[in-house]
This record gives sequence, structure tokens and C-alpha cells, in this order.
Amino acid sequence: MPRGWFHPRTATGASSLIPAPPWHYSGDLLTVEYRTDPARVRELLPAPLDLAPEDPGAVALIWADWQSCATTGEELLDPVRSQYKEAFAVVRCAYQGRTYSRCVYIWVDKDFALARGLHQGYPKKLGSIHQTRPHPYGPAPRIEAGAVFGATLAAADRRLAQAVVTLREPSGTNGFVNGHPMAHHRLLPSIEKDGGLALDELVESGASWSEAGQAWRGDADLELFEAPTEELARLEIREPIAAYYRQLGVTWDGGRLLASGTTAP
Amino acid sequence: MPRGWFHPRTATGASSLIPAPPWHYSGDLLTVEYRTDPARVRELLPAPLDLAPEDPGAVALIWADWQSCATTGEELLDPVRSQYKEAFAVVRCAYQGRTYSRCVYIWVDKDFALARGLHQGYPKKLGSIHQTRPHPYGPAPRIEAGAVFGATLAAADRRLAQAVVTLREPSGTNGFVNGHPMAHHRLLPSIEKDGGLALDELVESGASWSEAGQAWRGDADLELFEAPTEELARLEIREPIAAYYRQLGVTWDGGRLLASGTTAP
Amino acid sequence: MPRGWFHPRTATGASSLIPAPPWHYSGDLLTVEYRTDPARVRELLPAPLDLAPEDPGAVALIWADWQSCATTGEELLDPVRSQYKEAFAVVRCAYQGRTYSRCVYIWVDKDFALARGLHQGYPKKLGSIHQTRPHPYGPAPRIEAGAVFGATLAAADRRLAQAVVTLREPSGTNGFVNGHPMAHHRLLPSIEKDGGLALDELVESGASWSEAGQAWRGDADLELFEAPTEELARLEIREPIAAYYRQLGVTWDGGRLLASGTTAP
Amino acid sequence: MPRGWFHPRTATGASSLIPAPPWHYSGDLLTVEYRTDPARVRELLPAPLDLAPEDPGAVALIWADWQSCATTGEELLDPVRSQYKEAFAVVRCAYQGRTYSRCVYIWVDKDFALARGLHQGYPKKLGSIHQTRPHPYGPAPRIEAGAVFGATLAAADRRLAQAVVTLREPSGTNGFVNGHPMAHHRLLPSIEKDGGLALDELVESGASWSEAGQAWRGDADLELFEAPTEELARLEIREPIAAYYRQLGVTWDGGRLLASGTTAP
Repeated sequence: MPRGWFHPRTATGASSLIPAPPWHYSGDLLTVEYRTDPARVRELLPAPLDLAPEDPGAVALIWADWQSCATTGEELLDPVRSQYKEAFAVVRCAYQGRTYSRCVYIWVDKDFALARGLHQGYPKKLGSIHQTRPHPYGPAPRIEAGAVFGATLAAADRRLAQAVVTLREPSGTNGFVNGHPMAHHRLLPSIEKDGGLALDELVESGASWSEAGQAWRGDADLELFEAPTEELARLEIREPIAAYYRQLGVTWDGGRLLASGTTAP
Repeated sequence: MPRGWFHPRTATGASSLIPAPPWHYSGDLLTVEYRTDPARVRELLPAPLDLAPEDPGAVALIWADWQSCATTGEELLDPVRSQYKEAFAVVRCAYQGRTYSRCVYIWVDKDFALARGLHQGYPKKLGSIHQTRPHPYGPAPRIEAGAVFGATLAAADRRLAQAVVTLREPSGTNGFVNGHPMAHHRLLPSIEKDGGLALDELVESGASWSEAGQAWRGDADLELFEAPTEELARLEIREPIAAYYRQLGVTWDGGRLLASGTTAP
Repeated sequence: MPRGWFHPRTATGASSLIPAPPWHYSGDLLTVEYRTDPARVRELLPAPLDLAPEDPGAVALIWADWQSCATTGEELLDPVRSQYKEAFAVVRCAYQGRTYSRCVYIWVDKDFALARGLHQGYPKKLGSIHQTRPHPYGPAPRIEAGAVFGATLAAADRRLAQAVVTLREPSGTNGFVNGHPMAHHRLLPSIEKDGGLALDELVESGASWSEAGQAWRGDADLELFEAPTEELARLEIREPIAAYYRQLGVTWDGGRLLASGTTAP
Repeated sequence: MPRGWFHPRTATGASSLIPAPPWHYSGDLLTVEYRTDPARVRELLPAPLDLAPEDPGAVALIWADWQSCATTGEELLDPVRSQYKEAFAVVRCAYQGRTYSRCVYIWVDKDFALARGLHQGYPKKLGSIHQTRPHPYGPAPRIEAGAVFGATLAAADRRLAQAVVTLREPSGTNGFVNGHPMAHHRLLPSIEKDGGLALDELVESGASWSEAGQAWRGDADLELFEAPTEELARLEIREPIAAYYRQLGVTWDGGRLLASGTTAP
């Protein structure tokens, strides 16, 4: 019987686009938080999810520069298989009286990251993502007060977002919008025309382990751009909150099914 | 309620990575057929699929250079959203007394193609795919006797396959391995650790419409290369059959569920 | 002594990024001609070049989808080494009483194309270039009245130009702006700081052979976009002229030195 | 008169593919040194260059992960314009009694890096380059004894080299092969067929400023692979020397012309 945690399945399982969790990550997160019209958040939340009770229009736009691997860690030594970048928009929502974070848009630059996102319910597309890297020597910034980092996102040859973040001071948090367990949908249409959904799950997940450096708070100059097939710019910037920078390690090792079949036809 | 045939779902549905079928394609197919050890085909077939009763070791390695769109056709005018290339390996199998084609490996170079494959049960990864294009002027080949086409496949910065095909004569067929309805699995692990499969479907699909030019038959010099995370080369070349070239248009508009829950844990 | 027509030079010459001319091309050209403020053309012409005496504000923005090779043609069979796309802006100028075409901006997507441009005096950068391909089957357009082609250009993750061209009728020409021999500069700064130019040549070149299909004329919807390091949009669109589509084969086999040392410090 | 340090030249100079030096860099260098047959080094050295008098077969294969900028530093905030990776092979040579380093092969992944190399005499091609990044958290390595880094190089969809480096101890040097001023050629053929060289310079350059962290020494498992248009594997591995890892900042600000017209026709 063909084996493998993901497709393609083979006699050995070695071809699987992604190995089984746990998945381990080292990376840098650049986070820009702001408030949009809560109606723009509301329109992205399917029932049974509601707006978060407090600060419902808060958005985090996050850039991440990752190295990742599964249990053996072998991907780290063939880094085309471990390194990827992503940019994603997170809002908060409420489900059964609890507040969750929820990724509403996300772009990554590798197929293994797309596949993991499919499993986790992240609505991933491919994009071109860049963020300034801190470095101890030469012109690149250190992680310190006054340091300036740029971050950009493009997809289908159009720039969708860009930010310039200036660090101001150490921070007790790395922001609050992405700080809850994630509540995501895993949806796949039926293979049959007009057959509804073959998979319709509301799932919860989060890190099973993490460690992190000192978070830094600062401010951001953030711009969002229109594109024919993207609606990130609908999460228009009404009021800046803050920006954050943090280096961290994290492990993801599965989640929990919250509900099935809740999506209206 | 957020709308959209695929993720991400939004108020308008405009962000969906792919629109609903039907999906229409214009493209060129370069096909190399050969025989491998039937045991190498067998090991890729999960129950309840069996080897095809005749010529069970036949393999088609196919390169395709596509332009595709959904109903509005707007992708054709923003061609970064319509053009993609793919290379895929097809074998045959039997299910309930009928012979099916089955794609066992496939690489594409765009995210919308990955997403469509996910829906259709093609086990897609990203790759770098190239094939010589016919052209009426200058040094590129016409589609005619003696014309020579090259085709290459790489993934994760390693070349996986390359072929040089020489056309010999018009052909009544474009090969036989990829000529049946496709029998594919759509599998997704449970979000819960060791939770088995959340989606486990055996599906059938095929073109709902097609038109094609004259097929050409020729011969191929085909090489397959080893790679740490790829097993295409296990489908070792025992005996060449033939190579084919054909231009075609095709529409895909959904399939049929054959069985659910047949995959062993 | 190391050999090779271009770098890197080796004992065999096999590593040269590009072989010696002649270089042969098969490809499709999509051309959009329009008039801009002649002052915007003038500012791009170094002495001793002047504005063309007639229609001095005419611009051609051209997309090309190429397969190319040198004498052996081997690149055609490893198509990652022969296929490339480009978009370029051409104006006209006068030198010693003769009218020349001159490429003022150009983006390509392969290194061998960059290197050839360096030799020929094309001011090449890398970009992401796409154009709809004609196809005899399925949804892609044929080359015929009413056919619609899209074309886009991006660099550094920003879209710089996009066009939608509708073909109307066969045409006796493929436009006039790119119809003269090219007058280009080949410039390289001295390795020494503030050392001026080490290479400062005005050169002329053109096709040494060509063949082409029927040209088609149509009209275009063209948009140019601003970017921090690009000035294509300064060639603002004052008046459309026409759009053209043509398939062709062409050979380039060297040019002629017109003048040296004419560039002011 | 159009301005700009490099092409394309415009009224403002803003389009120049690269600004004038000085160029500043922050980056990580992973170096693998080994000995090859000195004859394989000799065949890459044009007169008047000779083999280095000591250890003439020494080779350094170096991976570098850079962020770079010119005087304003603005590229750092639009990191698609500042970040690039490269892999390059360095040998040593003698000229007029002095020992120089010389880059004989180099691959980069951005056009601005190609253009800078053209100016500096680096024989650059495009490639796909990856190296493990050190990180303070999670599964990626710290820079410490026992840390393991991978590095890979591909071009034209073929893997050309890969290394796995294990750090053993702090080192007083970062290797010796790349430790001299660089002696490079800047060559460009005449635009006229069989016209010889239009530019034929032997130039010297090196860093005008640098700072660096602690170098680490270790050992490497290095593999080189054949490819039709690459000859890196001719620098076959006879005897490993050592591997090194170092983070540094460096500035390049021009060089010196050593000789002109020394290349035989």
C-alpha cells in the first residue's frame, strides 16, 4: 500500500511533499498592527464565527522569514527545502465565547509551505515576499532602537503591500492580534459539479512549543495596493496600532476539530 | 457569508485562488511512453486499485505547456494568471473491471495549477518545466517529420528528467497510457495528530470537451535522475514505446466520486 | 590560454555565458506604438544623437516571446537555455543625417539575454514579462481579426506596464518606430573611482537575416505605472498610434562601431 | 545629457541598474577550501597571470548571503533590491611577483549583482543559491561548535554543487584562498564581427572597509556535479583543506587598472 503523510504516496513515502508533523521553525516576525472598519473584518468571518468582542477591527499584517523542518531536520541542510518567506493578514474572531486569531490572507514562496497551510487551514497563495534581515555587521540593521526594516509583498507581478518599520523600544508583547489559538476552515469542493463541499471543517491549532527573543515595538509606514484578484486592500488602514519585531522558534504538532459541516452552501 | 469557490473566501469571492469549473485549456502536449517493471507501477496503486490487465508496466511521461482560464477568460489577458507548464507521470490501473489512467507524479509552476490539482486529485508539487515550442519561423521547430523537441523537469534545484523527441510521422493516436478517464485519490490528513484521514476519496474525471490537431509520433531519448525527495526514477525505463506531440484544447468540468474511505490507515 | 567568447573563459570555452554570434531567434512580437512628449524622448538621447526629424515623440513598447540559439542550436533542446521573454521601449533618433531606432529601456528574464544585450548595447535589466500566446485550439486566441492578447511587465515585484491588444486587420508593416537600424551605446565605467568611462562606444546593428509572417494591426489599451527605480512611465501616453502582432525569425550577427568617446563626463 | 552611473541612462539618473560605488554589504560567508590539480587552475589563468607560487592548486568555493546598498541605503528598505545570494569559486594567481585571488566562476540571483560583477570583473551568471542561516531560536543552527550548515548551487535547472559544513572551533582566519586583492579581467568583444576585444583590462580591487565577527573553522562534505555548460566540476576535489563560517560587513569602492590589451586574440 503506498505510504506517505501527504501526496504523492509511494512505496517508501519519501516523495511526500511534506512529512508528518511535528514541524519546527526558526524565524523572524515583523508585525504591523492597525485598525480597519470592523465591517471589513466581519465580512470575512463565516458563521458560526463572530467578531471579537473587543477591538474587533484590529488587523495584524505579518511578514515572516522562516527555516523549517520536520523531525529529522534534514531539510535544514538542503535549504531550498527548508527556507521560505510568507506574509499574512490576521484578524480575531469569537467562537463559542472564546476569542481566536484567524488568518484571512496569506502568501508564501514554496510548495511545501502551501501544503502545510492546506493542512492547517491557512488560505495560502504563492507570492514574492521580502523583509530586511537584521545583521551584526555592515549596513543592515541590528535589532535595536532606531533600526529600520522594510517588508514587501507581491503576487502575480503586482505589489500588494509594503511597510517600513522603525523599532523604538523593547516590548512585553509581540502584538495581540495573532496571540490566540487560530480558528481556521479547511474546505474543499466536491469533485462533483454543484456538489457542495467535500470537506468542511472548522479547526483550532497553535504552537505546541515555542521560544523567543526580546520583542521590540515600533511604528510602521504601511501601504496596501489594489489588485484584480486580491482584496487585502479592503482591510483599509483606519488607525495604526504599532509594529513589532521578534525572533523565535516554534513547533506545530496538530490541532483539534471544532466543528464540521457549518459552512452554508 | 464569505464567498468563493476556493480559498481565501471573501465578501465578493474575487480573491479565490481558482474560480469554479469549467476550466478551459489551450496547450501543447509532448508525451514519452515506455515500459517499466510492473512491480514499480503496482507499488504506487492503493487498494482497491489493481494493475491494468494489459501492458501493466506502461508509463507516460508528459510535458504540457498551457494557457488556461475559467468562464470569463479574463486570465488570458493577464497571462501571468493563465500560463503554466507541467510535467507528469501517468500509469494505468483497473477498478471494478474498468481501466483508468492515473497520474502518480506531477510538477507545475503556478499556484492556481496546484490548487486545481488538489481538487482533481493530481499529486502536484512545484517544479521548473520547459519544453521546446514549435514556431513557424526561425530556428525553432515546425511540427513536421524530423522536428526535434527538448523537454526538461527540475524540482528543488535538481534536474529530474529530460527528453529529446524526434517526430517521425502523423499518428492516429497521442499514445494510450493517458487515454482513459483518470482515477485519482483526494486525501487530506485529519487536523488531529494520528487522526487518520479527514478526506479519503477515490474520484474519476476527464475532459468534458476537447479538440485537437494532428498527433505526431516519434521516438525519444529519455533520462530520469535520482533526487532525495523524488521517486520518478524508480519508474525505470525498461523499454521505449514511442513519443507523441499534439496541440489541443480541452475543458474540465468536474468528475464523479467513485468511493470514500477506502484508504487503509 | 583560456578561451570563450564571453565570460567565464576556460580551457574549453564551454562555460561562456553566451557563444559567439550569429544568434538565431524564433518569436512573437506584440508592439504598441504611441506618441509621448518629444521632450521626454529628447532627454534620453545623449549627444551626438538628436531627435528624429519626423514624429519625434513616437514610442514603441514591444513584448517579445523568444526561443534563441547560436550556431549549433543545442540550446533549443534544453529550452531553459533558449527560451526567454522581454519587454522594451524603442524611440527613434538621428545621427549624421540618418534615422535610427534606439532601445531606451528593456527587461528580460534570463542571464544569457542580459549578456547578449550588454554586447549589443541594450540597457537590460531583469523583469517578469508575460504575453498571451496564440494557439490553434481551445480558449487562447488565434492570430485573426478580433483576437485579443494581453501583455504585462514587472520588475522588482512591481508592475510597470500592461497592455490589452485587439487585432483588427492584416497590416503591411509591423509599426515604424523599431524599423530602423539600432543606434546604441556600450558604456562601462572605469574600475578607478571617478575614472570616467572605460568603454564608450556608439554602435549600430540590426538583423542580418529575417523572415516573418503576416503582420496584424490593431489597437491597444496600454497602462504605464510608476516605480522608484524605473522611468518608463515618464514616456507618458499622449496619443495612441496602433498595435501590431507578428511572428518572425531573425538572425543577429554583429554590428558596426559608429563613434567612440562621445559621452560627456 | 542623460545621466546615471550605469545603464539605462536618463534625465534623472534614477533608472540606473546600479548606483555609483561605494557599495556596502552585510552578509554571511560559508567557505569550503580544497586542493585540486594545479593544472586545472593553470588552464583558467590567462597570461600574464601565473600560478601562485605556494599551494597553487588551492580552491575556495564560497557561498554568500548578502544585503547590499549604495550610499543612501534605500535598497535596504525595499529588500528585493538589496538581498541576493551568490556562490563562487576562487583560486590564487601571481602577477608581477604578487599573489592575487581570482574569481573564476560565480553565480548570483539578482540583476544588480550581475551588473556590479560586470564592473568588477566577476564572471557572473544567474543561479539558484541557498545556504542554511544561523538563527538564535528553534531548529536552525547557532554559530557554535557542532553546528551544521548546508549550501547548494544550481543553474539552468541543474544542481552544480552542494556542501554540508560542520563547525568545529573558532579560527584566526576565514581561509587563505580568497584573502588577497582580486585580479580580474574585464573583457567585452567588439561589436564588429571578428573584431577582437573592445575592452580588455586586467584590474585589481578589494574591500575599502570591513568588519567581521569571529571566524569558525570546520570540515565540509563537498560535491561538485557535471553540467553541459558549466565546468566547476573540472576543479575536482583532490584534498580537502577546511571549511569556514564568518559574518561580516564590507565596502567596495573601486579598484585599479593593472594592464590593458594583454589578452591574446
